[in-house]
Amino acid sequence: MSTMQRRDPRTMSIASDAQQMIEVARSEGIETVWDRLEAQQPQCGFCVLGVSCRNCAMGPCRVDPFGAGPQKGVCGAGADVIVARNLGRTIAAGSSSHSDHGRDILEVFAATAHGETTGYRIQDVGKLTRLAAELGIPTEDRTTTQVAVDLADRLMDDFGTRRASLSFVERSPKPRQELWDRLGVTPRGIDRENVEMLHRTHMGVDNDPVNILLHGLRTSLADGWGGSMIATELSDIMFGTPSPVMSTVNLGTLKPGWVNIALHGHNPMLSDVIVQAAEDPALVDRARELGAEGINLVGLCCTGNELLMRRGVPMAGNHLMQELAIMTGALEAMVVDYQCIMPSVTDVARCYHTVVISTADKARFPGAVHVSFDPGRGLEIGRDIVSRGVEAFANRNPDRVRIPDEPVEIMAGFSVEAILGALGGTPAPLVEAIADGRIRGAVGVVGCNNPKITQDYGHVTLTRRLIENDILVLVTGCAAVANGKAGQMVPAAASLAGPGLRATCEALGIPPVLHMGSCVDNTRILVLAAALADHLGVDMSQLPLAGAAPEWYSEKAVAIGAYVVASGITTVLGVDPPILGSAAVTGLLTSGLDDVVGAKFAVEADPEKAAVLIRRHIEGKRAALGLPAHDLDQIREPVATA
Amino acid sequence: MSTMQRRDPRTMSIASDAQQMIEVARSEGIETVWDRLEAQQPQCGFCVLGVSCRNCAMGPCRVDPFGAGPQKGVCGAGADVIVARNLGRTIAAGSSSHSDHGRDILEVFAATAHGETTGYRIQDVGKLTRLAAELGIPTEDRTTTQVAVDLADRLMDDFGTRRASLSFVERSPKPRQELWDRLGVTPRGIDRENVEMLHRTHMGVDNDPVNILLHGLRTSLADGWGGSMIATELSDIMFGTPSPVMSTVNLGTLKPGWVNIALHGHNPMLSDVIVQAAEDPALVDRARELGAEGINLVGLCCTGNELLMRRGVPMAGNHLMQELAIMTGALEAMVVDYQCIMPSVTDVARCYHTVVISTADKARFPGAVHVSFDPGRGLEIGRDIVSRGVEAFANRNPDRVRIPDEPVEIMAGFSVEAILGALGGTPAPLVEAIADGRIRGAVGVVGCNNPKITQDYGHVTLTRRLIENDILVLVTGCAAVANGKAGQMVPAAASLAGPGLRATCEALGIPPVLHMGSCVDNTRILVLAAALADHLGVDMSQLPLAGAAPEWYSEKAVAIGAYVVASGITTVLGVDPPILGSAAVTGLLTSGLDDVVGAKFAVEADPEKAAVLIRRHIEGKRAALGLPAHDLDQIREPVATA
Repeated sequence: MSTMQRRDPRTMSIASDAQQMIEVARSEGIETVWDRLEAQQPQCGFCVLGVSCRNCAMGPCRVDPFGAGPQKGVCGAGADVIVARNLGRTIAAGSSSHSDHGRDILEVFAATAHGETTGYRIQDVGKLTRLAAELGIPTEDRTTTQVAVDLADRLMDDFGTRRASLSFVERSPKPRQELWDRLGVTPRGIDRENVEMLHRTHMGVDNDPVNILLHGLRTSLADGWGGSMIATELSDIMFGTPSPVMSTVNLGTLKPGWVNIALHGHNPMLSDVIVQAAEDPALVDRARELGAEGINLVGLCCTGNELLMRRGVPMAGNHLMQELAIMTGALEAMVVDYQCIMPSVTDVARCYHTVVISTADKARFPGAVHVSFDPGRGLEIGRDIVSRGVEAFANRNPDRVRIPDEPVEIMAGFSVEAILGALGGTPAPLVEAIADGRIRGAVGVVGCNNPKITQDYGHVTLTRRLIENDILVLVTGCAAVANGKAGQMVPAAASLAGPGLRATCEALGIPPVLHMGSCVDNTRILVLAAALADHLGVDMSQLPLAGAAPEWYSEKAVAIGAYVVASGITTVLGVDPPILGSAAVTGLLTSGLDDVVGAKFAVEADPEKAAVLIRRHIEGKRAALGLPAHDLDQIREPVATA
Repeated sequence: MSTMQRRDPRTMSIASDAQQMIEVARSEGIETVWDRLEAQQPQCGFCVLGVSCRNCAMGPCRVDPFGAGPQKGVCGAGADVIVARNLGRTIAAGSSSHSDHGRDILEVFAATAHGETTGYRIQDVGKLTRLAAELGIPTEDRTTTQVAVDLADRLMDDFGTRRASLSFVERSPKPRQELWDRLGVTPRGIDRENVEMLHRTHMGVDNDPVNILLHGLRTSLADGWGGSMIATELSDIMFGTPSPVMSTVNLGTLKPGWVNIALHGHNPMLSDVIVQAAEDPALVDRARELGAEGINLVGLCCTGNELLMRRGVPMAGNHLMQELAIMTGALEAMVVDYQCIMPSVTDVARCYHTVVISTADKARFPGAVHVSFDPGRGLEIGRDIVSRGVEAFANRNPDRVRIPDEPVEIMAGFSVEAILGALGGTPAPLVEAIADGRIRGAVGVVGCNNPKITQDYGHVTLTRRLIENDILVLVTGCAAVANGKAGQMVPAAASLAGPGLRATCEALGIPPVLHMGSCVDNTRILVLAAALADHLGVDMSQLPLAGAAPEWYSEKAVAIGAYVVASGITTVLGVDPPILGSAAVTGLLTSGLDDVVGAKFAVEADPEKAAVLIRRHIEGKRAALGLPAHDLDQIREPVATA
């Protein structure tokens, strides 16, 4: 921790709340994710390059990246195969995580349709009906329940193995579908592609790196146009399709005199009933009895995004804030479902009065209280959980409460429906603005925080440069929270944008950076891209679009990046994926793929340079479409400023 | 390679054919799996102990096993979680491999039922009818096709996500089903459990090692009582249920003047039609035209076992023989499907006239000719492949032909149906022999070869000690081939057995070591164990049974070990799994599990000691059942002999 002690918190996060809490962590001697990253230095060079393999017990094996030592594992696999296999498994893990989340939503949706849940209902009947009609399910003269039962049944089959193509693949532009068919990467069953990837990467199965990577694309498409998309669509139907909503963000959303409960993880299923439970007068009374002013729910990570998008629940922070939130001393309970929940949160909570409550049977945390989620008793469980938070208020030590900063305003809620609604029901105005050059294009800035990157710096800087240059930015996940904290997600932030984008935003009363949801909700960006492409009669790969994941850390982010690229949208990563040990794999992903799917990956840690790269890419796409385009040579990064 | 040159081939394999071919490899300067294992020394200690994690890009991380360095990864996961997660993914990879194989068989079965294949038919109508009846599918007054369509449909659902329990779980004894339900490990969907394991092991999902390992058991049960069992049952229906058959084994099965074609991998789907194609008079004539005496098919690994069990096709060798088979200079073609096919075979083949032909689109090998398998043109593709082998005969250099040894006789074909048939249709005679002590118990010796173990030594030595002590041995996979080469799998080998087992074998005309098939066919052992338990009215964990995998290397073997233990059968591994970095996980698997599922793992590299351990275990189970049992203290390993 000695080196760590010397490190300026401003190099660790650009967010003032984080910087202050890092100082608190130091003064209290509490270990954080930055300390543990430092303790892990140097990280294993073989694993960093992707050239170590432990897929069988003849190994573990390592290929010497300098060429002096062994170039093959015991089975004979070289660096290309090893790197491709490892990447394939990473994609499968990410895709599986999203898809298993989608399955959980689907099961609760099906149970709700069958009347077997409490606390759940079909909130967006219009979306249910539209979706059913889209999938060929009869809707006329039928009850909501009947339609919902059929929809659940239909989507259940997408997790099975009978289909030649997933239901939502039909949503992508026809040329894209034909391309996927030609390449043999049209996803069949959601689970199937993941399982086949594990099979292919077993010793002695697929030994052709290109073949493995193509199946990696297929596996990712089973996420983007499968599991994740099902999660988004059914969440909208059950919990409401988001529409623009104002709220607040950063650790200042915690309130000194209130019972503060943070909802952390990724699944809206339980958190949504907790929001209902927190309004229970008996629980509010009990909180007052204990001296609190009331019950204050805040979100963390993507469970927070789900609640922010649909309920306007304030957002405490993104990935790297989860430990720091506890150190405010003002958090009674951290309720976790699954994904991206650092196991360290129970260690930090032990130093405070915070109760960590785990809720998913598939995600237990030693040191947490476990309240098993059961949709049949949703509301009852929600009340139990809130009650535990309320009771913990009695243990709060007011002297240790340190809430940094005032909360910042944020506008969220930009579902595709909301965006098209703001545009008058059709993508035409957006397409026109892009066509005439007022808006140059659009970029999805998505993904996580990673302590290897100064927190939020990648997200905020890249986004700022893009909007300054009239590029509309769509954000999800941690990227959205970062931009929210930086004040870039309110209508007034239109003033930060270039003149064309600014005028459009001001006319519509929207920010230049649109919050489209949690990380499974990246599918909303796919749906929007498909709508734009269909409107123009082109493929998605021809549009002036790009993706960026400046601070990614998760296997899910790799799956997302892969399905975005496989969908024809070039994507820039801010953190090296562990593939650099294979020139062939690296070359394919950063160059060769362009000829295959019309998009590729780039890696650029500096968001200033990433912005230039993306702007050039967008102008190139504009030129190819015959739209007015800037001279690429004019696009340079700004001279460094203090 | 210098150290390697000094190493005595007798320390590398106990099989004479292998020893001779290792000398050939040396004299020709061709690299083998043993060379590559040596070049990999020392293997990474972190990976060996299971304490390295690369499940996210905050890492890679390593826990210092000596306690001086970091004890937690960047996310906060300690050694217990990291080890459990890695093991969970290993089980999922093994289970997925088997299950994806099962799905392939199911798809061809379904297509055959719908009349969409050529070269395939329902060969065992009786088994189809029994299986359908077992699963509640009407069979009376219905055609074979109608029943097959319904059976395919039913099993398709086992790969989906609608079931609370897999179809074949019902085959296990009732007390075992109840135990699985109580533990929450009853497998639901085959793919689902694998995908959920990937999800649970994503950063920030399951952080309770016990919870992860319990789901590991569930994942493995989805293999043993799911994907693998479907593969076995449908393969029997399509290609015939094995019955005792005599054949030959070792590299001597290659014939000097013949076109030799080796069928390598794990799936009988294509190899079965190749057997038909090799009998095509036109192809045989062409072979003779080229100067060959005819076409000689041999098997390798589990594709070989499938063909040996059902067609009596000679078996060239197990896992470590695949490179050496090519070096005989007498192999025209190596036809590979998937699993355990070293990518090095194409490197070795380049030094000879051998054509490597890959056939599965999910398993490509650079340097191989790819003939894409399509069940709709099964026989046509079979002929194409055989033809390529025949034509390669023209390129053979007779001066380089070195076929070591004469083949050894082997009896195979012991399906459960065949065993019960030999016993007169009921397990009663076997149960009586066990009850009165003539046979002490039964042990499944299964699994792979691993160059870390002197090839076949573990299998042959352990098996020998067990049969000498009146323990019936059931073998599959590489273990079966090893015992076959050692001459322990002919009826005359009864003379090697103890008096009780010998008398039983001689009365029935069977070997003391019964070949039950390929590695997916370990499910036959489960079915037999369930039949014995049901006959006695006890759970499988109460029977005097054990499993052993003395030379395992594959992730599939880990899945098999896990489902065998989860089914109540204690299993001894001869190679350390990468779990020793966590005392908690190691303790749970080697001890704590006994209280949970009535069985556990042991690790013992020395087969002499493993035999003692297993004999004691079996006598303990006998005593607990009230059967006559030996004094445990009398069971000691033999004094070492030359």
